[in-house]
Amino acid sequence: MASSHTETSTRGDGGTATRRKRADALRNIEAIIDAATRLLAVNPDASVNEIAEEAGVGRITLYGHFDSRATLLREVSERAIAHTEEELARVDLDGDPSDALGRLLEATWHLTHRFGALVVAASQALSPEQMRRAHDEPFARARGLLERGRAAGEFRGDVPIEWQISMIQAILHGASAAVHRGDITADDAPTLVRETVMASLSG
Amino acid sequence: MASSHTETSTRGDGGTATRRKRADALRNIEAIIDAATRLLAVNPDASVNEIAEEAGVGRITLYGHFDSRATLLREVSERAIAHTEEELARVDLDGDPSDALGRLLEATWHLTHRFGALVVAASQALSPEQMRRAHDEPFARARGLLERGRAAGEFRGDVPIEWQISMIQAILHGASAAVHRGDITADDAPTLVRETVMASLSG
Repeated sequence: MASSHTETSTRGDGGTATRRKRADALRNIEAIIDAATRLLAVNPDASVNEIAEEAGVGRITLYGHFDSRATLLREVSERAIAHTEEELARVDLDGDPSDALGRLLEATWHLTHRFGALVVAASQALSPEQMRRAHDEPFARARGLLERGRAAGEFRGDVPIEWQISMIQAILHGASAAVHRGDITADDAPTLVRETVMASLSG
Repeated sequence: MASSHTETSTRGDGGTATRRKRADALRNIEAIIDAATRLLAVNPDASVNEIAEEAGVGRITLYGHFDSRATLLREVSERAIAHTEEELARVDLDGDPSDALGRLLEATWHLTHRFGALVVAASQALSPEQMRRAHDEPFARARGLLERGRAAGEFRGDVPIEWQISMIQAILHGASAAVHRGDITADDAPTLVRETVMASLSG
């Protein structure tokens, strides 16, 4: 596969070859980032060799696009954060707090399960400031909704709100681990997560 | 401190000095294991230097008792497992399933919070077979109790029992993380854990 990326700048067919080369490069970059996201979400210590193999490209091609594992890790982490923010921003948080929380949990479950252990890998690649921002944004969303539900008497208000946020996070990550172990299916997870979170909030 | 451990085998005061030396050595070994348990429970990558400092002994003293970090890690892990099994064996699992689960959760909370990230450190030191056994035993205890509570109609039986075990584990570890972050106090944790687990089981 790496052969399509050898320098061909002196070739006669000019534009077409360059365009094809660029399209190949873009395809490879996407394949590498997708493969890295998949592997790192399960094992934050996945190696460059494993990522290249999963992406179906050679080591040399990979290093042609990402000069180090750290560079690749940073790119993967930044994309995951951007994707997470986009997906969460799309969730309608208005209306009945329990319904809104159901929608937020559904979206967050898919992100948690998809990116999983990536957060461990990301913490090696991003600055503490970037990590903090990446976490604060989703938490602020959940917190606002919990505050509204507590004020409306839909969620119990006699325990710290930080505890409720911690539990939602623990339930989401625990559910992802349970799917990876084969204890529950990925299809059953969203309902189980929602029911368990709702139970913990009504107490 | 290390000076009390230099060889003094040819000293004239024989028995007394040897006994004192042995008592010092035992005290240092206990201090090292206690310090390692405390530090590794928070940070599984704690270094030998940090452990020696926390124990109030020199590096040389530490290496005199444990020839490598791996040896110390193995000793700490094996003690934590033995202690866990002892504590859990002491819990009365008979009688009303909810009451029994309350007692099991109380004991498990203290162990989870005390040993915390030690399980990550232990996984570097113990064989997969040792790790499996260390985990299976507590799980078997919880499973038996859940089965009894489901049969008695006290806990919901329409979700996989593995899910319920995963959630108990997630809630315990989430609670420990919440205490470390300062979101809740260690004093409030056992009650919050019990209420949240009970809510998740009654669904």
